[in-house]
Amino acid sequence: MSRENPLDPKQEILRTAARLFQQRGYDATSMNDVATALKLSKGGLYHHFQSKDEILFEIMNHAMEITQDRVLTPLRLVADPEERLRTLIRLHIEVVLSPRDREITVMLHENHPLPPSLRKRINTRKKEYIHFVEKLMAEVQEQAQKRERAGGGSPAKPRVSARAAAFALLGMINWIYQWYKPEGDLQAHNLIPQFTDLILRGIFA
Amino acid sequence: MSRENPLDPKQEILRTAARLFQQRGYDATSMNDVATALKLSKGGLYHHFQSKDEILFEIMNHAMEITQDRVLTPLRLVADPEERLRTLIRLHIEVVLSPRDREITVMLHENHPLPPSLRKRINTRKKEYIHFVEKLMAEVQEQAQKRERAGGGSPAKPRVSARAAAFALLGMINWIYQWYKPEGDLQAHNLIPQFTDLILRGIFA
Repeated sequence: MSRENPLDPKQEILRTAARLFQQRGYDATSMNDVATALKLSKGGLYHHFQSKDEILFEIMNHAMEITQDRVLTPLRLVADPEERLRTLIRLHIEVVLSPRDREITVMLHENHPLPPSLRKRINTRKKEYIHFVEKLMAEVQEQAQKRERAGGGSPAKPRVSARAAAFALLGMINWIYQWYKPEGDLQAHNLIPQFTDLILRGIFA
Repeated sequence: MSRENPLDPKQEILRTAARLFQQRGYDATSMNDVATALKLSKGGLYHHFQSKDEILFEIMNHAMEITQDRVLTPLRLVADPEERLRTLIRLHIEVVLSPRDREITVMLHENHPLPPSLRKRINTRKKEYIHFVEKLMAEVQEQAQKRERAGGGSPAKPRVSARAAAFALLGMINWIYQWYKPEGDLQAHNLIPQFTDLILRGIFA
């Protein structure tokens, strides 16, 4: 069963809370405000979440699950490294641009004061994703070098490391929410090929 | 005279307030907290700033002035477009990594609830910078095409538009604060050439 059940009341709470946190600020939004916006009693809200910290943690955790379900899981089916990188760029940009999840995923990037133990759990998942992208960049670079060697060349070491390339790509994609406008010229259909081109040309020696 | 006078009490207030806002959250930090951290009386603080909103606006405004003084102004001396782009990437990364200003510049990116008129003034300055970078990308691409034509070639249209390239670059650089560690392997001396390489190779046809 998908974790994306639209009738799941917990997900509705997270989505509404994420919207309020962004409109009014995290500290300025009370549990009461969240309950009111959802037409829930305060008890009804506390039935699902004990505290605002828990809601914030679950929003961030849900954002990481969305990344798992919609980026990482489909990638398992893509064997070729370069094709896997192209697919990752496309799927990650699609998640970032998804009107349904934008409010959830944006919360990953704001510096909200989460209790250290919860903050650590989110950061661990973020790091796993960064390492996945870094490893994939390295595979794509190695594949290109092998191809060149097979063709009789002696390829130079790539000038952009897999790690710098991973941070560059994640910056490009995760920054989109800062400038994206649903009515603007840059949309998924022209943004995805351009960002893919820029990264793929950039990482080869 | 430089706007970077280290004895300017206003700048000390902005730097301390920025640090508190990041550690505790903007809403959770009171004017009293700011005054206490600076060993100022509340009256002493209000002598310089009327409200927390004013402090937040002045932090963001100061961050834009730092960009003006340390990125845009020195660029006026660089005539060649490609060299100007290389210099911009270096200077902007240096500002982002500057220990002295990191707390100030980071504030530009967080979604704090600034009154609309003040928010608009910051956004106008941000947009001016984006347009400057976009125009520079277009110049670099044109220059490369001219060079190719002069050599007898018929250059293809660049596959990455100046606008997408500008957003990509600003994302790469402005995202650094999310992963940068002063003790990590990636520092200015190896990060600047890698990000420069990635962008320059990426934007040509």
